Amino acid sequence: MKLLQHLIAVALSLPVALMSPNVAAARQWTNDDPYYARRVTHFATLPPITRGDIVFLGNSLTDGAEFAELFNNRHIKNRGIVGDIIQGLIDRLDPIIDGQPKKLFILSGVNDISHDVDGDSIGRVMEKLIVRVKQRSPRTQIYLQSMLPINNDFKRYKRLEGKEQVVLDGNRALEQVAHRQGVTWVNLFPLFADDEGKLRRDLTNDGLHLMGEGYVIWRDAIKQYVK
Amino acid sequence: MKLLQHLIAVALSLPVALMSPNVAAARQWTNDDPYYARRVTHFATLPPITRGDIVFLGNSLTDGAEFAELFNNRHIKNRGIVGDIIQGLIDRLDPIIDGQPKKLFILSGVNDISHDVDGDSIGRVMEKLIVRVKQRSPRTQIYLQSMLPINNDFKRYKRLEGKEQVVLDGNRALEQVAHRQGVTWVNLFPLFADDEGKLRRDLTNDGLHLMGEGYVIWRDAIKQYVK
Repeated sequence: MKLLQHLIAVALSLPVALMSPNVAAARQWTNDDPYYARRVTHFATLPPITRGDIVFLGNSLTDGAEFAELFNNRHIKNRGIVGDIIQGLIDRLDPIIDGQPKKLFILSGVNDISHDVDGDSIGRVMEKLIVRVKQRSPRTQIYLQSMLPINNDFKRYKRLEGKEQVVLDGNRALEQVAHRQGVTWVNLFPLFADDEGKLRRDLTNDGLHLMGEGYVIWRDAIKQYVK
Repeated sequence: MKLLQHLIAVALSLPVALMSPNVAAARQWTNDDPYYARRVTHFATLPPITRGDIVFLGNSLTDGAEFAELFNNRHIKNRGIVGDIIQGLIDRLDPIIDGQPKKLFILSGVNDISHDVDGDSIGRVMEKLIVRVKQRSPRTQIYLQSMLPINNDFKRYKRLEGKEQVVLDGNRALEQVAHRQGVTWVNLFPLFADDEGKLRRDLTNDGLHLMGEGYVIWRDAIKQYVK
């Protein structure tokens, strides 16, 4: 167990030197978060990912849901962690792609934005992630999902205030990455946005995360890809 | 959706009038927590519990794990919510027992203690829960698990400081409830305690929650009951 913790600590800290300052600072935040560390060690002690698996990789939006139940599909594995950023997904990618999963659904980016990462940088880091999956697990079907809209009327996330445009910029960058890398682009944004481009009030209670009905919309949007 | 939210709000608030002051205050805390509300609506929009299901009901210790993966058993349904108390479990029991699940694993109580509920009260509320399950879903096999030890050396949970004895008292009360109600008592406490009765340092990073290896110990302790 000590060795495992050590290896995880090394794996999590090494790439920081190669990152942009904002991404590195955000990565430090996830490293220091006790929940994050627990979740990483939990994933490391679960049965390994296998070729039939459908992996949902992401942040709190993924972490908060029971996807295997939602889709009634036991092949779905939840690999979401509250607060994660795209570089965090990269750093914990190896045990996932080692299993050569059938499908990989990615949703991430809004925590990067809360750490002042801009839209273009989000695209760059996400492209690095996708290139790595394609190289190491070429038969995995990759589904890159857009960030959802945010709604700052709830005034719960100070670090997201005034950053609606960065979400739009980031989504444009992510869409370009999807097209350039030949992976499926899933534009969830319009399904969750109101007339002003804000996360619909009936689907959230904090302007960032989803109530149950929001997960139903997400499910219906991607069920054609999951099965 | 509005109706659903309304019904949940009513269901969550009604029983407060009948509770002891500490339990009522704690219940108000869960009602006011946005994550709690989201998780309740998520459960309400998942496919219903059915007769073959094995439900894990509890707080953050349950919420933080992927039990279906851990046990490689697709019948397991996670019904944990961060911060929940035993009265919270009672208030969200109906959709679970309506499905007449095969087995129900319960682990709860430490959040009650953080809200200054004493050991005997923990036993009383838990007995109310178990009686209700037995009445409404008589064929469900109930597994009542002890609270785990805590470790205040981490100094992360001020409301648990000096309450090691309440955990012991609560566990004694829970064990009596299990025997009185004829349900299986699962004493997890000694598996996670060091020589001083504290949660083992190698199994936690905050003195309350479990690292991956802790979930492996939990799994091995109850796998005979799960299958």
